[in-house]
Amino acid sequence: MEKNRKHTGMILGPNLRDRSLVSTISGQDEQGQISSFSVIEERPLSIFLNSQEIVTAMTIGDYPEYLALGFLRNQNLLKPEDQITGIDYDEELKTVIVRTKTETNYEQKLKRKIRTSGCAVGTVFGDMMESIEDINLPLCEVRTSWLYTLSRKINQIKSLYLEVGAIHGTVLCKEDRALVYMEDVGRHNAVDKVAGWMLRNKSEAEDKMLYTTGRLTSEMVVKCANMGIPALVSRSGFTAWGVELARATNMTLIGRLRGNRFTCLSGVTRLVYDADLRQKNG
Amino acid sequence: MEKNRKHTGMILGPNLRDRSLVSTISGQDEQGQISSFSVIEERPLSIFLNSQEIVTAMTIGDYPEYLALGFLRNQNLLKPEDQITGIDYDEELKTVIVRTKTETNYEQKLKRKIRTSGCAVGTVFGDMMESIEDINLPLCEVRTSWLYTLSRKINQIKSLYLEVGAIHGTVLCKEDRALVYMEDVGRHNAVDKVAGWMLRNKSEAEDKMLYTTGRLTSEMVVKCANMGIPALVSRSGFTAWGVELARATNMTLIGRLRGNRFTCLSGVTRLVYDADLRQKNG
Repeated sequence: MEKNRKHTGMILGPNLRDRSLVSTISGQDEQGQISSFSVIEERPLSIFLNSQEIVTAMTIGDYPEYLALGFLRNQNLLKPEDQITGIDYDEELKTVIVRTKTETNYEQKLKRKIRTSGCAVGTVFGDMMESIEDINLPLCEVRTSWLYTLSRKINQIKSLYLEVGAIHGTVLCKEDRALVYMEDVGRHNAVDKVAGWMLRNKSEAEDKMLYTTGRLTSEMVVKCANMGIPALVSRSGFTAWGVELARATNMTLIGRLRGNRFTCLSGVTRLVYDADLRQKNG
Repeated sequence: MEKNRKHTGMILGPNLRDRSLVSTISGQDEQGQISSFSVIEERPLSIFLNSQEIVTAMTIGDYPEYLALGFLRNQNLLKPEDQITGIDYDEELKTVIVRTKTETNYEQKLKRKIRTSGCAVGTVFGDMMESIEDINLPLCEVRTSWLYTLSRKINQIKSLYLEVGAIHGTVLCKEDRALVYMEDVGRHNAVDKVAGWMLRNKSEAEDKMLYTTGRLTSEMVVKCANMGIPALVSRSGFTAWGVELARATNMTLIGRLRGNRFTCLSGVTRLVYDADLRQKNG
């Protein structure tokens, strides 16, 4: 990470020194040769909101407090006005408890829901979609030169992805700088960790972009919109509903960013074509 | 699909004629040129077990009955002994209701759980893990020649992946034949649809292999074990816990199958090295 910081100006990045994230296993190849591999760890983490168990997430295990906080916020179970009084992580019990000053809206909703017939998963889903109806993301610039520089930088940042693979990354960016780089087995967890970091550090959203290695599905767009970030960028593809939700929230959505190529599916008005495509950018 | 069947002997495959799975959207490229793209659809589907809403899944929308059935079985909410009396799909309401003759174990569990403090997600997770403790998958052969032939065949089968991308595939295989190829935005859905098809068609599991384009995480291994399939194969990587669970259930787990290369992480005793690596196999 130290090396990463020096090279990129990152605030927080993949913690390659934390050896609990990786383990060594042996396998046999196509010739019958036995060799050892580094593989990513994956462990359950139960997230509580006050006394209510909300979900058990499968995670690599770093930054559990950010993951819990970001998950609850991105699912709209924590509202911006909720006052957080503590976040307790218990490594042995594999739990994180986020405590708020007063009972949250979600706890009341869940009680109502249980009295009828529904189950929490449906509720959670409903709340996520409900929350973005009124979102209209602020205007800002997204320069193509930033996109190319970021793409090149992020591919070179030392990461668990480069070391062991089978992992997704999400990067909070400002202009052409990668500020916070989180990784996890699921792309949703990586985004939630960034959201948790932003909440904890009172980071402004309106001048940021979010880069993800994963596909731009509806849930990714909803999370980004809930975070108030006006631009979401990926090297991967997109789904029809992801694009629709981006357009509904006035988000700049960019997919298939590779080399000097990309596709902008929504919010093209933010794009500033400042890069010279005749030369190698970045 | 007709063409696929003729060429590969598949029973059921990607339904490329169903145009509701794909829509056309416009985007702007790096030069500011506007063009049209085919993208995969993604829509919510709420799954009910009798009167109990269980989950809202994001899916491309094909084979909703298989998805519901397979999901409930793979989460161990439906037991093998449960007698299914009907599966009702309502396209307008975007719901599937799976009905059983008697109240299922899950409904009792959920009631108990609600009386304490937990939420269904935690329960579901707990039940999934609980169920695999006693699994010891049967012995069978996994020939390396089958792996190479399957890998080559599956890459060539006409699919939504080849057409529009941003999608995962799961294929039920027997020896070197691809029998059922399901696709979805999430790799879990694709596996669940295969599981639903197997249940509906009373397909034996012990002589099958499951191929997935996605990573071999704990949940994928648990699903495969619950389905009783002794071998799980992927072109992608794996997590530490995925490998651990495969070993615990005596599953043959093969990752990074590309060209003539692969890594076998568990259950090597089933492997038969019958392919000649000096020549191009398949």
